[in-house]
Amino acid sequence: MEPSNWLEETYDDDVRLGFRVREILVDKQSKFQRVQIVDTYAMGKVLALDGLFMTSEKDEFFYHEMIVHPAMTTLANPQKVLVIGGGDGGTIREICRYPQVQSVTMVEIDGDVIDACKTHLPSLGADAWNDPRLDLRVADGIAYVAEAPEATFDLIILDGSDPVGPAEGLFGTTFYENVKRVLKPDGVFVLQSESPTLMPKLFTEVQTTLRQIFEQVTPYFGPVPLYGGSIWSWTIAGDEHTPLNIRPERVELIQPTAKLYTPELHRSALTTPGYVKALLGT
Amino acid sequence: MEPSNWLEETYDDDVRLGFRVREILVDKQSKFQRVQIVDTYAMGKVLALDGLFMTSEKDEFFYHEMIVHPAMTTLANPQKVLVIGGGDGGTIREICRYPQVQSVTMVEIDGDVIDACKTHLPSLGADAWNDPRLDLRVADGIAYVAEAPEATFDLIILDGSDPVGPAEGLFGTTFYENVKRVLKPDGVFVLQSESPTLMPKLFTEVQTTLRQIFEQVTPYFGPVPLYGGSIWSWTIAGDEHTPLNIRPERVELIQPTAKLYTPELHRSALTTPGYVKALLGT
Repeated sequence: MEPSNWLEETYDDDVRLGFRVREILVDKQSKFQRVQIVDTYAMGKVLALDGLFMTSEKDEFFYHEMIVHPAMTTLANPQKVLVIGGGDGGTIREICRYPQVQSVTMVEIDGDVIDACKTHLPSLGADAWNDPRLDLRVADGIAYVAEAPEATFDLIILDGSDPVGPAEGLFGTTFYENVKRVLKPDGVFVLQSESPTLMPKLFTEVQTTLRQIFEQVTPYFGPVPLYGGSIWSWTIAGDEHTPLNIRPERVELIQPTAKLYTPELHRSALTTPGYVKALLGT
Repeated sequence: MEPSNWLEETYDDDVRLGFRVREILVDKQSKFQRVQIVDTYAMGKVLALDGLFMTSEKDEFFYHEMIVHPAMTTLANPQKVLVIGGGDGGTIREICRYPQVQSVTMVEIDGDVIDACKTHLPSLGADAWNDPRLDLRVADGIAYVAEAPEATFDLIILDGSDPVGPAEGLFGTTFYENVKRVLKPDGVFVLQSESPTLMPKLFTEVQTTLRQIFEQVTPYFGPVPLYGGSIWSWTIAGDEHTPLNIRPERVELIQPTAKLYTPELHRSALTTPGYVKALLGT
């Protein structure tokens, strides 16, 4: 097999994961980053940004169900939701399953990502792109939270990429402080928080920074087949939230379509295993 | 980076996972297979058999805690244990944590694997290699269960590699029937049962075959960083066993050393997610 027939990502120069390519569908330099959508034999169509694998048709539910449902099944009254990033559409698809949601504001910096995903990965955003509750803005999420009025949202989800390129400022104290200001007092912030096995230093830094700003910071864990490190983390942070108080009537709403989420998975994912406790020194 | 500086496994020609090599410690052709132990930057020392990644220093607990503890924390009286394969020693290490165990018979076909792992991966077998309860036999596991007396073991663990080379016969009906004969009526059989995401056909075949032989067949799931497919499965099979009846006094025994296992993880791992139900047609 020629090297050019593989779509490959290398992590810290030490691990590489490759998927054999069927066809390159998009490969363009947007204003912000290289945007690729590549059809692979193993994962179906894969979205890569600046060479980093973001999501794929075959495994996207491992990521999108995890970033949405632990918050949405436990929040008392999730009416107003803000998604920063999430240009592939998978996160808003899962949020729109809940009739409690009155509005979803999505702030994605790169319109080319949205266009490419609407065209080539339509199963990700699905009907959510046309949901009347969606307020889609092609804009900078960092500026958006700096300017939005305080106590506006019940849930803010940061569905960003790794802290390089346009996503770099999404991992800093100033951004998190603005998120807290824009959240209602009983609201929660959820973010993808990197891999404790593959990027233990970055994972730990995010936890430490969040703990300086929020009263309750709970990382949770699950595998993502597309990500070479296997074990990914998300974190749910807030001041007045109980992320294990699962509401059965919410679970019922998503059970018919969930490929991964169960209440048992929720409870297990939020239990910090020994190897992560060792990392965090707790 | 030169290709030769990477230890790489390719799955079904479509996915490849590589680790950058620090040093090759063992590379020999045994009577049965190519045995390699390679020191890598990301995973520490990795054992590969016929080019397939088996286990590594850094991630081995993801596999070994999962193959042992769901059975050992639920069996009423696990006194006599048989391990088929398991030449790296990680499985017997976890079994030997339980004082209830009176004997562990380990039948590994390839003495060269045991020797290489004792020398280069000593943290895997650790003290278990010298445990007086260990009866270590370098022999064919298929022949062993064909000849062993019936109703001998409380627990049989098949810790084998993929169904190629010397492990091929470990995935057939005759072998499973002999396992059942050699088990006590209330005993259980646990095996690694491949990946539902990476090898869905093989995973499904194993489940179907086991269901023809055992009354209760429960697959369970977890990630293994060393295995490119991310989501691995193990299966617990028996006629009179309740694999969710977790005994708290057993959990206490392993809690001080467990890097992964928790009762929450146990319950979640044994909950079949939607995407696997779809695969199994259940």
